[in-house]
Amino acid sequence: MKPILPKDEAAALVDAARIRQGLTWAELADHLGAPLVWTTAALLGQHPLGTEQADRICERLGLDEAVAESLALQPHRGSSPEVMRDPTIYRFSEALSVYGPALKALIHEEFGDGIMSAINFTVDIERRPDPDGDRVVVTFDGKFLDYRW
Amino acid sequence: MKPILPKDEAAALVDAARIRQGLTWAELADHLGAPLVWTTAALLGQHPLGTEQADRICERLGLDEAVAESLALQPHRGSSPEVMRDPTIYRFSEALSVYGPALKALIHEEFGDGIMSAINFTVDIERRPDPDGDRVVVTFDGKFLDYRW
Amino acid sequence: MKPILPKDEAAALVDAARIRQGLTWAELADHLGAPLVWTTAALLGQHPLGTEQADRICERLGLDEAVAESLALQPHRGSSPEVMRDPTIYRFSEALSVYGPALKALIHEEFGDGIMSAINFTVDIERRPDPDGDRVVVTFDGKFLDYRW
Amino acid sequence: MKPILPKDEAAALVDAARIRQGLTWAELADHLGAPLVWTTAALLGQHPLGTEQADRICERLGLDEAVAESLALQPHRGSSPEVMRDPTIYRFSEALSVYGPALKALIHEEFGDGIMSAINFTVDIERRPDPDGDRVVVTFDGKFLDYRW
Amino acid sequence: MKPILPKDEAAALVDAARIRQGLTWAELADHLGAPLVWTTAALLGQHPLGTEQADRICERLGLDEAVAESLALQPHRGSSPEVMRDPTIYRFSEALSVYGPALKALIHEEFGDGIMSAINFTVDIERRPDPDGDRVVVTFDGKFLDYRW
Amino acid sequence: MKPILPKDEAAALVDAARIRQGLTWAELADHLGAPLVWTTAALLGQHPLGTEQADRICERLGLDEAVAESLALQPHRGSSPEVMRDPTIYRFSEALSVYGPALKALIHEEFGDGIMSAINFTVDIERRPDPDGDRVVVTFDGKFLDYRW
Amino acid sequence: MKPILPKDEAAALVDAARIRQGLTWAELADHLGAPLVWTTAALLGQHPLGTEQADRICERLGLDEAVAESLALQPHRGSSPEVMRDPTIYRFSEALSVYGPALKALIHEEFGDGIMSAINFTVDIERRPDPDGDRVVVTFDGKFLDYRW
Amino acid sequence: MKPILPKDEAAALVDAARIRQGLTWAELADHLGAPLVWTTAALLGQHPLGTEQADRICERLGLDEAVAESLALQPHRGSSPEVMRDPTIYRFSEALSVYGPALKALIHEEFGDGIMSAINFTVDIERRPDPDGDRVVVTFDGKFLDYRW
Amino acid sequence: MKPILPKDEAAALVDAARIRQGLTWAELADHLGAPLVWTTAALLGQHPLGTEQADRICERLGLDEAVAESLALQPHRGSSPEVMRDPTIYRFSEALSVYGPALKALIHEEFGDGIMSAINFTVDIERRPDPDGDRVVVTFDGKFLDYRW
Amino acid sequence: MKPILPKDEAAALVDAARIRQGLTWAELADHLGAPLVWTTAALLGQHPLGTEQADRICERLGLDEAVAESLALQPHRGSSPEVMRDPTIYRFSEALSVYGPALKALIHEEFGDGIMSAINFTVDIERRPDPDGDRVVVTFDGKFLDYRW
Repeated sequence: MKPILPKDEAAALVDAARIRQGLTWAELADHLGAPLVWTTAALLGQHPLGTEQADRICERLGLDEAVAESLALQPHRGSSPEVMRDPTIYRFSEALSVYGPALKALIHEEFGDGIMSAINFTVDIERRPDPDGDRVVVTFDGKFLDYRW
Repeated sequence: MKPILPKDEAAALVDAARIRQGLTWAELADHLGAPLVWTTAALLGQHPLGTEQADRICERLGLDEAVAESLALQPHRGSSPEVMRDPTIYRFSEALSVYGPALKALIHEEFGDGIMSAINFTVDIERRPDPDGDRVVVTFDGKFLDYRW
Repeated sequence: MKPILPKDEAAALVDAARIRQGLTWAELADHLGAPLVWTTAALLGQHPLGTEQADRICERLGLDEAVAESLALQPHRGSSPEVMRDPTIYRFSEALSVYGPALKALIHEEFGDGIMSAINFTVDIERRPDPDGDRVVVTFDGKFLDYRW
Repeated sequence: MKPILPKDEAAALVDAARIRQGLTWAELADHLGAPLVWTTAALLGQHPLGTEQADRICERLGLDEAVAESLALQPHRGSSPEVMRDPTIYRFSEALSVYGPALKALIHEEFGDGIMSAINFTVDIERRPDPDGDRVVVTFDGKFLDYRW
Repeated sequence: MKPILPKDEAAALVDAARIRQGLTWAELADHLGAPLVWTTAALLGQHPLGTEQADRICERLGLDEAVAESLALQPHRGSSPEVMRDPTIYRFSEALSVYGPALKALIHEEFGDGIMSAINFTVDIERRPDPDGDRVVVTFDGKFLDYRW
Repeated sequence: MKPILPKDEAAALVDAARIRQGLTWAELADHLGAPLVWTTAALLGQHPLGTEQADRICERLGLDEAVAESLALQPHRGSSPEVMRDPTIYRFSEALSVYGPALKALIHEEFGDGIMSAINFTVDIERRPDPDGDRVVVTFDGKFLDYRW
Repeated sequence: MKPILPKDEAAALVDAARIRQGLTWAELADHLGAPLVWTTAALLGQHPLGTEQADRICERLGLDEAVAESLALQPHRGSSPEVMRDPTIYRFSEALSVYGPALKALIHEEFGDGIMSAINFTVDIERRPDPDGDRVVVTFDGKFLDYRW
Repeated sequence: MKPILPKDEAAALVDAARIRQGLTWAELADHLGAPLVWTTAALLGQHPLGTEQADRICERLGLDEAVAESLALQPHRGSSPEVMRDPTIYRFSEALSVYGPALKALIHEEFGDGIMSAINFTVDIERRPDPDGDRVVVTFDGKFLDYRW
Repeated sequence: MKPILPKDEAAALVDAARIRQGLTWAELADHLGAPLVWTTAALLGQHPLGTEQADRICERLGLDEAVAESLALQPHRGSSPEVMRDPTIYRFSEALSVYGPALKALIHEEFGDGIMSAINFTVDIERRPDPDGDRVVVTFDGKFLDYRW
Repeated sequence: MKPILPKDEAAALVDAARIRQGLTWAELADHLGAPLVWTTAALLGQHPLGTEQADRICERLGLDEAVAESLALQPHRGSSPEVMRDPTIYRFSEALSVYGPALKALIHEEFGDGIMSAINFTVDIERRPDPDGDRVVVTFDGKFLDYRW
């Protein structure tokens, strides 16, 4: 009897197969017919795939059953502080540190006392061409939830 | 001789005057002709206002010269860990903890090795009506910067 | 021009007046016609009171306008690590540390992938008589929110 | 001579067997005739099972003697900070951070100076149907212990 | 309207009066007819005094009503990490770091799965003469509480 | 050439053998003719055993030479923060956080400026029958050391 | 008798006077005939000024004797973690986190086992025009010190 | 199917081969025709090498394909706190702690509100002969980026 | 009734008076007839002065009774992490981080299992002339204490 | 191709061989003709040995080539916080926490603004017989380095 392959090890195997076969995350998302950021996050271990999705990915990447079983597992979500200090990720944290209180003030002004859900929530990323250098545009889109007793 | 009023004290005076006069952050932004999130962040102490902007805000809010002087001061930017744990702000941090590695992977896939700038950068927030409950839509828009030696 | 009285100072004034007048939190909640835990948390600075509520409390306790203005302010929520180490509060944290992974597993088993909302959420506390010593019964009741893309 | 299988490895084997055999935590609790949250927490390594209980579970799941020996071991209890940041678990911590001081105040008001025991203590979880979305209802029920010299 | 004097300020006033009048903690405990460690801890802000006790102490030390009101207040208990690093206090923490796992093993061996209560609990300190140098003898005496569902 | 077996691995082997042979820590202490808490702490890796003691324990438990070599090794002492959060151990830490400043004050009052040694030091634990529930009695007994230049 | 004005308060007064009189740090350095980064760091409280230097600065800025006394005081050096998270300062820390191990390897390769002194050390900053955007050029120049027994 | 060799393991293999063959980092940089600090940092795992570069290095060092695959992988950048405390690296951090606020003030004075990029950025290290002991000269050269909305 | 002047405020007053009167720490130690490091540490708040010593120092420095009362107070000992990061102090910590395990090994080799007391302990500092630059020589001299049950 | 044996594993092999052959650190230092503390620290991984020294030690201890290669490797220096909490090491840290500010003040008084080098630095330990119990005498001897621009 063996434990289920940990999700970080499954993610490392997915990433290795993806790179060796010259596939993009976008192609994997297309293969699943699922949103791009969702697919990438799920394959990196932050969302459970449905069993059928997990099988389809493993078939496409030539990975065995043990990986599919892991991809379907319910995750413990979140990243370590060490991961969050990577410069590409840190810039988002820095922006939150600078603009977080302003976003809070404006959410309360527009919606009242509550939060933007991080669960009923989507993220999208796109490239916006710009003569001064193309831009990364990331959209956080979450349902407003009011403090409701 | 007195030191310049600290920016957090200036921000508290701006907020008090704003509330007592029934003004929204949006109205203050309109008064300055400046973007909404930028204005809110600046008045909360995260950006320096131009001298003329600082005077215009203080005049509108009936605040004295010392506040304007503080608003024009170059800030030390960022928020304390305690501020970042407020639930309305924390949801953004949690989303980054879940989606940060995926955003990093997709930035590298689309743009190559580099980052989204948090300096040549704007944030926007808007309300999107939705029959299942209106949504908070926050857009991070930063210039891509590639690691360039 | 003065800043708004910080909510922790307002809370200290409310508590002092409450104690000196021999009033319980339950009597203050009744006076507001609001739930007991909500009222206590709000007066301790974790929820904004409505203006009318704030005035009613201050009138009852003989506190001036500045306290009412503070009670109506939008809070930064949360408690410092030092507060969370008080033994009476720590027992709840310890229970979460012991039972948190089990609660997570059972939420996923019963509801699927998602969370109990801490926003669309109520807490209740009651005393249950027991011959072996009365018991503290605290109920957390939050809407299930599924991860929904 | 080998050391006893660590409880986290036993828990991973129990979880893998449970998933592969399509069993719920509730079915395992029924099989033991023990409370649901207790059983789940115990199988995840937070309580020792009795020898007979450990054998019955391992027989049901087809796990060998080494797992049963581990399940009966006295645990070191508690979860790492990383586990506590998972969103499903974090919502409970956030609720405590917001309502903890109020719960403390109300325990003292109703019972006097003391705590809710986290040892003479049960937790229950149930689903409450609600037209606005079903709710997670978690009840903490602990004996009051007064500071008694 | 003023807030109640914080308990650390009351403790500083008690200690100053005690020193200036040449009184020992033991004499104050005798004056109250209460145990020595309890009295000292309570006057330092870790336990609430009864109203009558608080008045008696303030009368003895020539402290005004505001101090008595503070001494009777329900405390937030615990000491900061900085306080715990004082060498005289640190030796106790070091001993726990060395002997804690052994004490845990022996409590489980003798009593079963449970804890020594820190609430239904007394501490005593005494001097034991010894030709090799007198000894500090501190006794922790707490009710055993078994994990009981 | 192999390194010496780490003391935590030796401790795990001792504990496994002890449990499988149905031996108590008290019986092992008797077998050594050494104090109970000392023996338990030493076997858990916090004190070096004498060579003869290490051999006698390994013979009794049927453990090989490598374990004896490890038990005789000079330890790095102390427990990780994670170990100290186990509820059975944490209660001692909490008691120190509440009573530590009082114990410091009383040591200074009785002995002058100095500390209780944690080196010239013994710990004892015993069960005291009590009609309201038996009690855990732990005695810390350390030589007073005065700050002496 | 008053304590010496803390160096952070003196720095705030220097900065306020400097801004109000429209002086640059460079002009103050010229006024002292001292290096630019040294002067700025010293006026911000990280180096003691000579008495004559302190007087000359205070005279220039119209600050009184108490400020000069503080500027000449030996500092406790270093910045808080909060200051180090300001984005303009953080970029230097990030660069060290990325290039620190490489710099260490190259120092050892070129000089042997040792360090770059941070005491026998100068820093310079200059603007280098560049058609793609001017550049900040910061030079760290420290004496090599070899581990020498 | 195997995961890609982690970059820290690839770095350890590169370093071992380099030392055993008596090669300097400078020789490896020459071999690649790339800057010295960049090459060292890249081989230590902080930058991805191009495929052709990775192959050329592995051929030179007699390392197999798996190392080349790892060297070309996109890194998570940054060093652990433990690495940053090594004395040779720490001196740079200490210098930033002392001079960081001055560098920030001077960047703002010379360039306006913004930062030195750590992405569009080069580092150089050289040895400067000096009769009092040769000096380590490290130059940070980054594009100025202004806060631009 | 006023609390006793905190020892850090007394230390600031002593230091200010000492500087303004051009006195060295060595002269103050001579004035007391006490060891140099002890006197300096005591005046900075780490040891209580005897009443007679406190009076003699305050008389010498022209400080009032309140300072003497504070100097005689029993201290909470130790320095904050921020103080310990000052470069002059940090070098000692770094040396301990490098040589601490070696000192431990050698203490055990020479003395057996135990420690160097930090209580029955003196520190001395002297300047040793050296043609390559004078040297700071600091001697830690503590009684060996063996673990003795 | 294998990486170089990590220095902590080499240190564990050296220590095992040393213990099994009944050798003291002093004998190993004599064998090298190197200072005692330096040798011990180097063999524990804090200094690189010269190739010839590494070979001589491995020959003496019967360790193979891989250990010698590791001993000659340039180290990352320093100890983890967990190591620094061992009581024998902690006493030194505690002494620094108590006497660090005094040592800083006295270094500045005697030498001016600067530090004791931890690089051009030796440590010595010796046993000083004393009728009240022998003493551990540790001498830190470092070159004074003045802040020199």
